[in-house]
Amino acid sequence: MTQGATQDASQLLAALRFGSDGLIPVVAQQHDSGEVLMLAWMNRDAVTETLKTGRVCYWSRSRKQLWRKGESSGHVQRLVELRVDCDGDALLVLIDQSGVACHTGTRSCFFRAVRDGALIEIQQPSGAAAPGETR
Amino acid sequence: MTQGATQDASQLLAALRFGSDGLIPVVAQQHDSGEVLMLAWMNRDAVTETLKTGRVCYWSRSRKQLWRKGESSGHVQRLVELRVDCDGDALLVLIDQSGVACHTGTRSCFFRAVRDGALIEIQQPSGAAAPGETR
Repeated sequence: MTQGATQDASQLLAALRFGSDGLIPVVAQQHDSGEVLMLAWMNRDAVTETLKTGRVCYWSRSRKQLWRKGESSGHVQRLVELRVDCDGDALLVLIDQSGVACHTGTRSCFFRAVRDGALIEIQQPSGAAAPGETR
Repeated sequence: MTQGATQDASQLLAALRFGSDGLIPVVAQQHDSGEVLMLAWMNRDAVTETLKTGRVCYWSRSRKQLWRKGESSGHVQRLVELRVDCDGDALLVLIDQSGVACHTGTRSCFFRAVRDGALIEIQQPSGAAAPGETR
């Protein structure tokens, strides 16, 4: 496995089925701990850039532009491996997350859980919040 | 934590932001190994049923109906915990997967990876294929 190296995206792109909005959902998982950190979206350009640079780049649906994760916060995601699901309509990126993944300052965006019917916070901000970085 | 018990979905539903199609993406992760098994979708009814029954129920976009995972294959997903992301627009279900998650017979739907620019299969069907179950 080539980690972080430049990879051509053409074969991958041919296998993907983007939605009518041109986007595909992407699950980001810390490569060693297995923690699911966030779910975001990529368009074709974001997929291409991620493979080319070895740093994860999403498409921000709110800002309607490429979102080079960590560009403002420093909390970059180094790509370890990119995986594709059976139907080609979802991606899984195994990453090495610098700092925290969530703009709220928590390590994972999935910091709330339903327990006994109540939605509670199970993870607190680490203090390393990422001001200025929004999804 | 109440595992598999009936839970009321009203507080959760109030925190969720469904897409314009009424759906929310859901990442399914094996609760003990951390393996990401699949990405699928839920509507409000699927969320409610999943919490009520303790078995994961999705919305099938292809069949346009509730998809009680494993109903035809026996490969059910017992809900261990349901988590919500920061924006309320993605779910993570920690599950106990019976058999395989993928309709192709592989344990995970994410059985292909990009390595040196080529898309290769990194996981083979276990022989426990799930005929009749489609996404």
